[in-house]
Amino acid sequence: MPDFAVVLVGPKIPGNIGAVARAMSNFEMDELILVDPCKLEDDAYRFAKHARHIVENATVFDEFEKAIEDLDIVVGTTGITTENERKFLRQPTTPQELADHLADKNGRVGLIFGREDYGLMNEELARCDILVTIPTSEEYPILNLSHAAAIMFHEVHSKREVRKDRSLADGKEKETLNQLFSELLEVTNYSEHKRAKTKVMLRRIMARADLSVWEFHTLAGVVSRAINSVKRNKQD
Amino acid sequence: MPDFAVVLVGPKIPGNIGAVARAMSNFEMDELILVDPCKLEDDAYRFAKHARHIVENATVFDEFEKAIEDLDIVVGTTGITTENERKFLRQPTTPQELADHLADKNGRVGLIFGREDYGLMNEELARCDILVTIPTSEEYPILNLSHAAAIMFHEVHSKREVRKDRSLADGKEKETLNQLFSELLEVTNYSEHKRAKTKVMLRRIMARADLSVWEFHTLAGVVSRAINSVKRNKQD
Repeated sequence: MPDFAVVLVGPKIPGNIGAVARAMSNFEMDELILVDPCKLEDDAYRFAKHARHIVENATVFDEFEKAIEDLDIVVGTTGITTENERKFLRQPTTPQELADHLADKNGRVGLIFGREDYGLMNEELARCDILVTIPTSEEYPILNLSHAAAIMFHEVHSKREVRKDRSLADGKEKETLNQLFSELLEVTNYSEHKRAKTKVMLRRIMARADLSVWEFHTLAGVVSRAINSVKRNKQD
Repeated sequence: MPDFAVVLVGPKIPGNIGAVARAMSNFEMDELILVDPCKLEDDAYRFAKHARHIVENATVFDEFEKAIEDLDIVVGTTGITTENERKFLRQPTTPQELADHLADKNGRVGLIFGREDYGLMNEELARCDILVTIPTSEEYPILNLSHAAAIMFHEVHSKREVRKDRSLADGKEKETLNQLFSELLEVTNYSEHKRAKTKVMLRRIMARADLSVWEFHTLAGVVSRAINSVKRNKQD
């Protein structure tokens, strides 16, 4: 099992921050990261109950990008699903699938929860390796923030067992690979307007594939070689 | 799947009743039964948000026995587990096991939640057909009432979802992709003696990633483009 950091992006209601902290403590998590949060008023501590220390020790960032910098796997939660596969930005897995997927991983996993009203923005979703949606009623799909969090924590907590680990590519290595793919699209003059979407798609595919360190090196080698072949020939 | 009734026994905090009602609505439940509840003050409706009707239509009983009279299966929730098998009153299953168990049942199932402070009394637990405990941290096992409820609702709801499957790339498509990778290795003069191993590795990575049809087309496009860029430049 990896270590978990819980990231609340733009929370507006202090009580929700406290309620999430309490649920974290119930499920053995203690690292809370807040991005551009509301003021931490009384409710943030009151609703935390015995998990007050989690709120007190929370790390606060101005920007989403900085908050996720040190994470190896970024898991975004979204309430919106789509039928349309082309809208690949939102192709979510269930909390149970996530828990299964993470059970034999290491490293630091960020569980990202968006704003109470708007959730995560598209550019934030694009930065996530995995998207999770809790299946709900279609008529009233809007979960309370701390309910969604408690459900997610419960699912990953229920899989906490000792499992054998493959040594997996870490966040930095995956970023290197994403950079290489990006460069490949560039040198092959991949259509500009499709480039961003394709980059996100490649990121997601690689995240799902759980690359080992060895596979990362091989794949990075293949892509680098392709890039260099194109470049070298261009210079000829 | 059976029909569910949610029974709150002796709830003391109006906001919790509202929060449970909201979670019920999120997971397609609408029958709320209250046993000896606190006064339904503003918070009971405020926290219910769009599920106000559930609170308004709740049935209120004085006594536990009457509240469960019409239920076919009575499921009690308890935060306390015991190692001692003799204390048969509290031998709980997990929410996931409960959901599996109920998936092919009919009739009316009551999900019973106890008081915020004392939970369910022994004589109430004795009346339950099934006991469920949500596994938690040993240090801080006390879940918020509506968190516990949301987790239970989510688990039983997740078994009634008919999963919409993504349409996955079929064998032929995956073979096309493998061929393309193979060609890429060739045109980039990838080391002959490593080629076979790398091909297998790429095949495995793609198999693990469960490519959708759309992802297959995009990825095949990216690789083809790389191959053609190398070839075209070679001819120049």
